[in-house]
Amino acid sequence: MSFEIDRALRRRAEKVIPNGMYGHQSTLLMPDGYPQFFSHADGAYIWDADGNKYIDFMCAYGPNLLGYRHPSVDAAYVAQLKLGDTMTGPGPVMVELAEAFVGMIGHADWVLFCKNGTDANSMAMMTARAATGKRKILIARGAYHGAAPWCTPVMKGVVAEDRAHQIYYDYNDAASLEAAVAEAGDDLAGIFATPFKHDAFVDQAPLEVAYAKKARALCDATEALLIVDDVRGGFRLARDCSWSLAGVQPDLSSWGKVIANGHPISALLGAEKARHAASMIYATGSFWFSAAAMAAGVETLRILRETDYLEHTVALGTQLREGLAAAAARHDIDFRQSGPVQMPLFLFGDDDMRRGYFWCGEMLKRGVYTHPWHNMFIPAAMTQADVEAAVAAADEAFVELKVKEASLTEPYQMAYLRMASAH
Amino acid sequence: MSFEIDRALRRRAEKVIPNGMYGHQSTLLMPDGYPQFFSHADGAYIWDADGNKYIDFMCAYGPNLLGYRHPSVDAAYVAQLKLGDTMTGPGPVMVELAEAFVGMIGHADWVLFCKNGTDANSMAMMTARAATGKRKILIARGAYHGAAPWCTPVMKGVVAEDRAHQIYYDYNDAASLEAAVAEAGDDLAGIFATPFKHDAFVDQAPLEVAYAKKARALCDATEALLIVDDVRGGFRLARDCSWSLAGVQPDLSSWGKVIANGHPISALLGAEKARHAASMIYATGSFWFSAAAMAAGVETLRILRETDYLEHTVALGTQLREGLAAAAARHDIDFRQSGPVQMPLFLFGDDDMRRGYFWCGEMLKRGVYTHPWHNMFIPAAMTQADVEAAVAAADEAFVELKVKEASLTEPYQMAYLRMASAH
Repeated sequence: MSFEIDRALRRRAEKVIPNGMYGHQSTLLMPDGYPQFFSHADGAYIWDADGNKYIDFMCAYGPNLLGYRHPSVDAAYVAQLKLGDTMTGPGPVMVELAEAFVGMIGHADWVLFCKNGTDANSMAMMTARAATGKRKILIARGAYHGAAPWCTPVMKGVVAEDRAHQIYYDYNDAASLEAAVAEAGDDLAGIFATPFKHDAFVDQAPLEVAYAKKARALCDATEALLIVDDVRGGFRLARDCSWSLAGVQPDLSSWGKVIANGHPISALLGAEKARHAASMIYATGSFWFSAAAMAAGVETLRILRETDYLEHTVALGTQLREGLAAAAARHDIDFRQSGPVQMPLFLFGDDDMRRGYFWCGEMLKRGVYTHPWHNMFIPAAMTQADVEAAVAAADEAFVELKVKEASLTEPYQMAYLRMASAH
Repeated sequence: MSFEIDRALRRRAEKVIPNGMYGHQSTLLMPDGYPQFFSHADGAYIWDADGNKYIDFMCAYGPNLLGYRHPSVDAAYVAQLKLGDTMTGPGPVMVELAEAFVGMIGHADWVLFCKNGTDANSMAMMTARAATGKRKILIARGAYHGAAPWCTPVMKGVVAEDRAHQIYYDYNDAASLEAAVAEAGDDLAGIFATPFKHDAFVDQAPLEVAYAKKARALCDATEALLIVDDVRGGFRLARDCSWSLAGVQPDLSSWGKVIANGHPISALLGAEKARHAASMIYATGSFWFSAAAMAAGVETLRILRETDYLEHTVALGTQLREGLAAAAARHDIDFRQSGPVQMPLFLFGDDDMRRGYFWCGEMLKRGVYTHPWHNMFIPAAMTQADVEAAVAAADEAFVELKVKEASLTEPYQMAYLRMASAH
C-alpha cells in the first residue's frame, strides 16, 4: 500500500487548514497509517487518495446507510438540482418530505429541517425552553449532542455561561436522572437522551427500559420535554424513533446523518404539544430550504419503508459479531464487542487503547477500515462476502496482535486526547 | 396569476411544519400574495409552484451570485457526486478549495469549512475566546450574525446566559466602539462587524473607514481578534474580504451563501496569529467534509477570479438605482434606495412599511420579486433587459401607489414582527 498522494495532500493541507484537518474526520486521533483523504466511494467501499480500497465500517461516521452513491437517491438529488436547489423559497418537495417523515415517526406531528445534527439539537433545546418558559437542560454525562459551545466535548473557546443551566446525569440510571430532576427544581425545560449509550471510548450499552420510562414519567410530571437525539442512531435501529422500541415516545427527536443517505440535511421532529413553541423560536440557515437534499430524503425514506435494509444490516452485524467473537476466542484475545450488532464498537482489555490502535492498523493494512474508539456502522450495501473478508482480516490481525502484544506502548495519540479534553 | 397550487401546499405544510414555514424563507412577514413555494429556477428567474415567473432580486437571500443552475458549477458538483460526496474522510478537493480560497483573501492563512453562516460565526467567537483566553464579544446593535442562541434576533428559547459576555456598540460609530471596548476592560476576546451596515428594516449604510481603522487599532491594542462577517456581503463587493476596500484586514472572516453559488458550504478564514486557537477548538458537522459542494466551490471561485461578474452586477445595480430614482421622482414618491447598488434596499417614508408592502405586492404582480425590508442581491446572470423590465414594473407600481396611498393601513404583518421581537 502506498500513501504518497495522501502524504502530499497532508503537507498542502497543513498550510491552509489548522492542524491539517479538524473535527471528527481528522485522523489526528486515529492509528498511524490511516489515510486522511478519500478519492471515491461506492456501496460499502471507499478508496483513499492513493487508490487503496477499503471495506468501510464507518459509513462517513453514519450518513452512508444504504450504500455510497445509491443510484436512485442520487438520481433524485440530481433531478431536483436540474429544477432548482437553493431558491428564494422552498420547493414543493419540502412538504412531501415533511409528510413522509412525520408519517414514519410515531411521536411526531411536525418537522423543522436544518443542516447539522447540532442544529437539530440546538433547536430542541430552544424549543424546550420556549415551551416551558424554564431553563434547565439535563444531559447524560459523556453523551455527544454536537459541537456548538453549549455541547462541544472540547472546552476550548467555551465560556462557563454556555452551560450555566445544564445538569448532568448518568445514562441508564433512573436514580441519577431523578436526582438531576430534583436539582433542576421548578426550572426544568428538557431532558436529552441518546437512543442507547453510544459514547466514544467506552463500551456501548443498550437502553434500559426502566430508565426510559422514568424519563418519560419525570417529563410528564414536570411538563419538561423529553428529547431523543437520534442523529447517530436514527433509522439504524427502527423505522421509527429509536425509543419506540422501548415503548416510550419522546416529545422531540433530533435526526440527521442518514435521512438523505449522505446528502446534507438534518431535522427536528416534535409532538403536537411542542408545536407552538417550535413556531416561536427563530432558527434558520442559508441552505436549510434547499430542495435537492429534500428530494434525496423523500427517496431515502421510501427505501427505508419498502426494503429490508434494517433486517439486512442486523443479519450482517450478527454474522460479524459471531465471526469476530470466534476468531478472538481462538486466539485467546480479550476482545469486547458492544452496541447493536449493526452499530458495533470494539474494545480490548487495556486502558490506553494500545491493542485497539495496533489491531485497527492491521485491519487497515488488510483493506478493512475500522475505528479504535468510536462506534461503527454497517451499510445496507454490505454483503456476507464483505463480512467474511473482514472476519478473515481480523483473524490475521489477532495473530499479529498476539505476536506484538508485549512490545506495544501507549499510542502517542492518547496525549492529544488528554490535551483536548483538558478544560 | 393563479396561486392555487401554492395555497394547497400551504394547507398541507400547516399540518406538518410549525406555522407552515419557519426561518428567513417563511412568507409570514412578506406582503400578501407572495408565494411560499418555488418549483424551479434558472439564471436570474424563479418560478413559483403555480408556474408564475419572476425576475428574482433575492437570489435565495444571497446564495445565487452567478445565476441559478450555473452550468459549470453544477457540473462540478455532479462530477464529484459521481465519485463520492459524504465519505469517511474529505476528498482531495478540500485542499484545492482551501488553497484557492486562502489565495484570494488577503488577510487569510487558513480556512475551516462548515455548512451554515452561523457555524462560521460561532467558530469565530470560539476562536477569538480560545486565542485570547478572554470572554467579551462586541457586536453592533441590530446586526445579524446567525440564528444560534448566542445571536438569533428572536429571544424565544434563549436564556440570559447565552449572551452573558456580549457588549453592543453602534455600527460605524468609533466612539461607541471605544466605549464598548472600555466596558470589556481586560476581558475582550473579539469584535464582530459586518462589511457594511446591512441590518433589516432600516437604511443600509456604507462602511466608514475611520470606524474600520479604529476597530483594527483597538484590536491591535488589546490583542482581541477583529472578525468581519462576510456571510451576506462576501464576494458581492470585492474579490477579497469586504473590508479590504477600506484598507483594513481583519483577523477572522466568516463566509457562506455564495462561495459555491448555492451549494451548501460556509467557511471561517483566519490569519496566522489565530491558527493555533482555531486548531484547538472543536467544531464539526456530519456534512462539513462533503466533497461535492467543495468541487462546486472550486469552480465558483475560479469564475469569480476570471470573469467580470462583479463589475457586471455593479453596472446593473447602477442602472436599476438610476432607473428607479427617475421613476420615483416622476411620481413624486419618497423612495429611499440604500446600500451598494448590487445589494439594494428600498424604503418608503413611513414607519409601518405600508407603502413598501403595497409597492412590493404590485411589483410581484408584474413578475418582479422584491423585498420590503431586507436587502436584495443582483445576480451576475441578470441582464440590462431584466433591469429595464423591473424599472418599467416599478413605474407602474409607483402609479398604483399614488392612487391607493391614502387608503393604505399598517400591514398586519407588523404585528407578527412586534411579537417576534418582544423578548
